[in-house]
Amino acid sequence: MAERERPSSPPTISEVAAAAGVGRASAARTLGGYGYVSPELRERVLAAAEELGYRANALARSMSTGITHTLGVIVADIGNPFFAGVVRGISDTSRERGFDTIVLSTHESLDEEIAAMNVLIDKRVDGVIVASAAVERADVAHLTAAIEHGIPVVLVDREVSHLDLDAVVIDNREAAREAVDSLIRAGHTRIGFVWGPTTDTRPATRRELLAAAAKNLWTDAERLRGYLDALDDAGIPFDPDLVMVGVKTEERAIDEVARMLALPDRPTAVFCTETDAMTGSLRAIRAAGLAYPGDVSLIGFDDSSWAAVMDPPLTMIAQPMHELGETAAATLLALIDGEPTTRSRHTLETTLVSRASVAPPGGARR
Amino acid sequence: MAERERPSSPPTISEVAAAAGVGRASAARTLGGYGYVSPELRERVLAAAEELGYRANALARSMSTGITHTLGVIVADIGNPFFAGVVRGISDTSRERGFDTIVLSTHESLDEEIAAMNVLIDKRVDGVIVASAAVERADVAHLTAAIEHGIPVVLVDREVSHLDLDAVVIDNREAAREAVDSLIRAGHTRIGFVWGPTTDTRPATRRELLAAAAKNLWTDAERLRGYLDALDDAGIPFDPDLVMVGVKTEERAIDEVARMLALPDRPTAVFCTETDAMTGSLRAIRAAGLAYPGDVSLIGFDDSSWAAVMDPPLTMIAQPMHELGETAAATLLALIDGEPTTRSRHTLETTLVSRASVAPPGGARR
Repeated sequence: MAERERPSSPPTISEVAAAAGVGRASAARTLGGYGYVSPELRERVLAAAEELGYRANALARSMSTGITHTLGVIVADIGNPFFAGVVRGISDTSRERGFDTIVLSTHESLDEEIAAMNVLIDKRVDGVIVASAAVERADVAHLTAAIEHGIPVVLVDREVSHLDLDAVVIDNREAAREAVDSLIRAGHTRIGFVWGPTTDTRPATRRELLAAAAKNLWTDAERLRGYLDALDDAGIPFDPDLVMVGVKTEERAIDEVARMLALPDRPTAVFCTETDAMTGSLRAIRAAGLAYPGDVSLIGFDDSSWAAVMDPPLTMIAQPMHELGETAAATLLALIDGEPTTRSRHTLETTLVSRASVAPPGGARR
Repeated sequence: MAERERPSSPPTISEVAAAAGVGRASAARTLGGYGYVSPELRERVLAAAEELGYRANALARSMSTGITHTLGVIVADIGNPFFAGVVRGISDTSRERGFDTIVLSTHESLDEEIAAMNVLIDKRVDGVIVASAAVERADVAHLTAAIEHGIPVVLVDREVSHLDLDAVVIDNREAAREAVDSLIRAGHTRIGFVWGPTTDTRPATRRELLAAAAKNLWTDAERLRGYLDALDDAGIPFDPDLVMVGVKTEERAIDEVARMLALPDRPTAVFCTETDAMTGSLRAIRAAGLAYPGDVSLIGFDDSSWAAVMDPPLTMIAQPMHELGETAAATLLALIDGEPTTRSRHTLETTLVSRASVAPPGGARR
C-alpha cells in the first residue's frame, strides 16, 4: 500500500520537437496535420511522438480542421429508459459517421442545462442535441448562445417555444388523444389523468388548467391537450377532480390516484403519461384493494419489457426512441456538414400497444 | 423556410483586445485569469468580451490552472437503470465540488470503451470513472494510457484483473450466495441460474464452467461463484443443465428457462442475475403455463419500482447505486486534489429485499 504519486503531465509539442531534433513549428505542423513537412522530418516527429506517448489534443486538431468529431447530448434524465434509448440511437448514427457522443444529464433543471451547454461549448463539440427544460422566453439564452458560437443545435423529444430550431419529436397530443379515445370506446367516461400540471392549487376550470399546463414542459402540456381533445370529441365534460396536480413523482401519483379512487364517482380508467405515473397508479389501485382491468383500466406512456411481463400485461404507448435519436443525429450531422437545409420539424409515429389492461367499466377483460 | 446560414465562428482573444483597445497580452491575461492586469484595463476587456460573446475555452483555462473541472464517466450501457443510478450519484457529488460530469456509453464493447477514453483524454477531463468491459491482460492498455497522461482513473461496479486501481464495487459473490441460500432455506434444491457464461458449448463440469465464467465480466463470474458457494454450503450437487449459457439477452433467457422448465426434473426456483434475465424468465414461466411463486420461486438482481408493483411483487437484490457513484466520485476527486492516498477498494453493502416471489417448492407462498 505505497503512497500514490501524482501522475506526470502529458508531453508537449516542444518536448516531442526536442526529442525528434526538429523545430517546434515542424513538430506542430506534423502533429496538427496541417502545412508542409518533409517526409523525413515527419517520420522523426511521429517516431518521437509515439516514443513519448504524445496525443494530439482535440482543440489543436479543431484549430486545423474546424471539426472535433464529437457530438454533445443534453437530456433531462439519463435514468429514464426513454432518454437512454434516444441516446443509443444518436450514438449509433453518429458512430457510423465517425463522431463520438458525450452526454450530460440535467435532472430537469434549467440551471444544470445551462451549465451543461457551457461545458459542451468549452469542450468544442461540433453540435448539440438537447431535450430542453426551457419553457419561458427567458429560458433559451443558452441555446442561442451555442448557435452564436457556431455550434448547431437540434431539439429532441421537446419543442421549445420562442425559438425556431430543428426538432425531432413525436405527436404527443395525438398519441394521448388516441389512448384516451380507446378508453372511451371501451365505455369509460370517468378517466383519470396522471400526471397533470405542476401547480399547488387545483385548476377549477378548463382555462385555468390549460394556463397551468402551458407553464410546464411542452410534452406534458401536449399530452394534457390530447386528453381534453378525446373528451371533447366524445362530448364528455372535463372534471378537475380527475386530473393530478403537483410535483411529478411516483409518491405524489400514489396520493393523487388514491384521492381519485376515494371519490363518490371514482374513475374507472386512468391514463398515465410517464413510467413513474404508471407504477404509482398501480400501487394506489392495489392499496385500495382494487384490481386492473376489472376495477380500473390502465394505459401508460413509454413501453418497456416490464410492462409486457406484468400480469395482466399493460397496454402502453410505444415511442420510437431509437429512431428519434437516429433522426436527430442525422439532422445535426447535416447542419455540421453545412448542407443547405431548411429548418425542419420531424414528427415520428407512436404505436398504441394493446395488451390486457383495458376492459369495459366494471366489466370483464376486453 | 429560408436557407440556413452557417453560424459565424466565435470571437477570438485578438478581436476582444481590438474591441477593448488594449494589447492582446492584456486581453489574454484577463480572460485566462493569470498574471497582472490593471483594474481599468481588466474592466474594458471584460466589457468587450461580454459585448462580443467571448467564451474562454476549457483548454486555455486548463493551461493556466491545470484543472478543467470536468469528470468523465464511461459506462457499459447507459440504458441500464443501474448505471443511470450510478451516474446520478457521481454527478450529484461532483457538482457539489464544482465539477461537471460527461458520460460516454460503450454498449459493452471494448473498442468503444477505448474510443471513449481517447475522447476524454482529448477533452482534457480531470479524471475518469469507468465500468470497464476489460477482461484479459491485453484489454487494459487504454486505462494505463489515461494514467500516463496524468488522468486518474477509478473503477466502478467492476474490478479489472491485471490492474491495481481504486475500485468501488459491491460483493457480488456474497450477494448471490445470500440470495441462493435463501432459496435453499425455503426448501429448493433444483435452482436455475440465469444468466451464465457466454459460451457456445455447455460446460459439463464445474471446472469447465468456472473456466468459461473467467472469460466473462468480473461481476458475472462473481455471481456464478456465489451460486456455487451456496450449493456447496448445502451439499447440493451442481447440475450443468440448470445454468444458462450463450448470449446475454432477454430472448436467450426465455429459450434457456423454457429448456430448463421442460426437463424431467425441472428447477423449482430461478436466480436471475440481471433485469433482462428476470423479464425473460417471467415470460418463459408464463409461456409454460406456470406461475410464480407456486411453481417456480424467483429472486433477481437490481431492484426497481417495476419489481415492487409486479403481482406478486418480486424479491430482489438492491444495489446502492447512488452510493456507488458518490463513493467513486469522492475517491476520484481526492486523487485529482493530489491527496496522499493508498489504492483503495470500497465494497458497499447490498440488500436482499424480500417480497413475495419465494415459496417452498410446489407449496403455498411463504
